[in-house]
Formats: sequence, structure tokens, C-alpha cells
Amino acid sequence: MPAIKTQRHSSKKEVIISKAAKLFREKSFSGTSMRDLAEAVGVEAASLYNHIQSKAEILQVICFKVANIFMEHLERIEVNQQSSIEKIKDILRFHIQHMINNFEEVYVADREWRHLNEPYLSNFKVQRKNYRQRIAAIIENGIQKKELKSIDAPTAVLMMLHAISGIESWHRSKQKISAEQLEENMIVILVEGLEK
Amino acid sequence: MPAIKTQRHSSKKEVIISKAAKLFREKSFSGTSMRDLAEAVGVEAASLYNHIQSKAEILQVICFKVANIFMEHLERIEVNQQSSIEKIKDILRFHIQHMINNFEEVYVADREWRHLNEPYLSNFKVQRKNYRQRIAAIIENGIQKKELKSIDAPTAVLMMLHAISGIESWHRSKQKISAEQLEENMIVILVEGLEK
Repeated sequence: MPAIKTQRHSSKKEVIISKAAKLFREKSFSGTSMRDLAEAVGVEAASLYNHIQSKAEILQVICFKVANIFMEHLERIEVNQQSSIEKIKDILRFHIQHMINNFEEVYVADREWRHLNEPYLSNFKVQRKNYRQRIAAIIENGIQKKELKSIDAPTAVLMMLHAISGIESWHRSKQKISAEQLEENMIVILVEGLEK
Repeated sequence: MPAIKTQRHSSKKEVIISKAAKLFREKSFSGTSMRDLAEAVGVEAASLYNHIQSKAEILQVICFKVANIFMEHLERIEVNQQSSIEKIKDILRFHIQHMINNFEEVYVADREWRHLNEPYLSNFKVQRKNYRQRIAAIIENGIQKKELKSIDAPTAVLMMLHAISGIESWHRSKQKISAEQLEENMIVILVEGLEK
């Protein structure tokens, strides 16, 4: 039976998680079987269970790993001394870069988290809400300091995060513009607006 | 056996389509059975087939009905004499209002169209691409006339349409702001930007 192929610095479990993220993104969590995953990894289904307990565990690992990445970044932004507008730009750039470079896992954490089991589901929901509220608080602060227009902060958060999820279409398309151009364009449109 | 209840001015088929849109949105197209639909309509599954041929037909009706609504609007906008910025605002407001008031059908057409059968699938894909290209052309025109910033037009279209799909979260939330406030905030953020 073939062994699970690993790249330097990545464990077998990491290889499984990475292949699973790709499958969950393409076929959804519900539409992916352990057999599909075993095939993608290139081993028998039984040998997957030496490394992970279940499909549910894989989704947990993906969602909480992605949550950690964004939460740690937000915590650094919250305590730094930048202006609100610089903080918002940093958060946007971080999201854009992760949607570009870590697409499969970020996409799955964003779209498939509803399939988590308890207690992970409730916990993830609370973290997600908390994360958005903390970005809204940065925007509120920018409005008070007259750096930002007087807009509804939760609406701005919702729009920014959804606009960035549009990078999904960029991945699917022929990518006529580079990742760097995509990032710069998105920052201009969201922060400065379309109007000249 | 109970008859399908209709409201004034709506046919039985319209009632079925409307209930189906709600179910497809909540449970996805794949996750909804004709039995679920019959239950939601309040009739036996067999009697649905007096009005529609299949689940596939319902998805076709929803997708092409929504496509007609947006395409007809775009055609009116293309030929009117407004500035590019006014045209873009009109398109955004139209999308926002339909995501608010015609949520179930617009959501299903946007998210579940990949489940269409051929020849509808290819046809819908082409229309979708064409629709986005024509909005991009309006933006390009605005850039040439110096009404809009020199941004990548397809990226702007992708971001605007995805940002508006964020209204899904507004529907799920406790709706702390009204539909009118939501629309005004979205227009300000997308057209004028966050920065003061």
C-alpha cells in the first residue's frame, strides 16, 4: 500500500487537511466522501484513520486554523498605533492575500462552517460574530475621529468581507490581472470609492 | 386532497415556484426533495406534477426569470442619457432592492445555477458573463470620461456584486438598520468609499 506522500516540512496530517480543503471547496463538505479523500491523497481509506478520526475532525481543523490566523492578525492590528484607515487597509489586505494564497482553506472556513458539529459550531459562530464586531469597532473609532465617513459600521464590514469573497471568481477566471493588481484595485474601490 | 392555495393574481405554478425558491435557499437545490416541496405547498407530491414537470424545471424558471429582470433593467440603463456614475448607482440600487425584496429567488439564481441541466446551464453561464461584461463596459466608459477612478472594471463588477450578496447576512441578522438605510450605506461605501 503506498505511503502518504509528504513535502518537506509538512506532516501527513497536513497533507490530508490540504487535500481535503481542496475537495471540500470543489465538491462541498457534504459532497466529499472519505473515499474521495483517500483517492486524492493516494492511499486506502482505512489508512487515513491513522492520522485523522473523521471528516468532521478535518472540517474542525480547517475552520479553527483559519480563525486563528485572522484573529491573531486582528489582535496585532487593534493594539498598534496606526490610524483607523491604515488599520482597515491592513485588515483588507490580509483578507485579500489569504483569499489569494490560502484560498481553499479560507473558502471552506467561510462557506462550510455550518457543517461543524457541536460544541465547535456554536463556538465558531460566536468567534465569527466577535471578529466582525471588532472590525466594526475599528470603523466606529475611525468615524468618531472623522477619518471615515459616517456610515453604518456593521454594513461596511459585511460589504467588505463579501466583496473580498468575490476573489473566488478571480480564481475561477482566466485571471487577466495579477494578484498584486487585484489587491490594489480592491483597496482603492473599497477605501476610496469608484467616483473620481 | 387539499387544493394548492393561491393568492390573488398568483397562479398555482407561481405559488410552487415561490415555495421552492424558499426551500432551495434554505436547504440548497440538491438538499430539497419534491416531497419537501409538496409539504411546503400543502399538497400530495403527485399533484405538483400537474403544474410542473420536475425539480429541474423549477430551477430553470427561477434562474431565467431572475436573469430577465436584471437584463431588462440593464438594457434600459444602457440606452438612457445619464452619466456613468448615475448608471452605476442605478444598477447597484436595483441589485440591492432585489436582494432585499426578492431575496429567495435572486439568491437561488445566484448560488444554485450550477445545478441547471443543459442546454440551460451553458446558456445561463453565457448570459451571466455577458451581463457582467456590459456593466464593466459602463464602468470603462466612466473611466474614459474621467467620472470614475482608473480601476480595473471587471474587478469592480466582481466586488460590487459580491458586496451586495452580503445582504444575505442582513436577512439572517436582527436587521438593526432598515432596508432604506442599508441601501444608502451600500451606495456611499461602494461609490464614494469609506475614507472621509
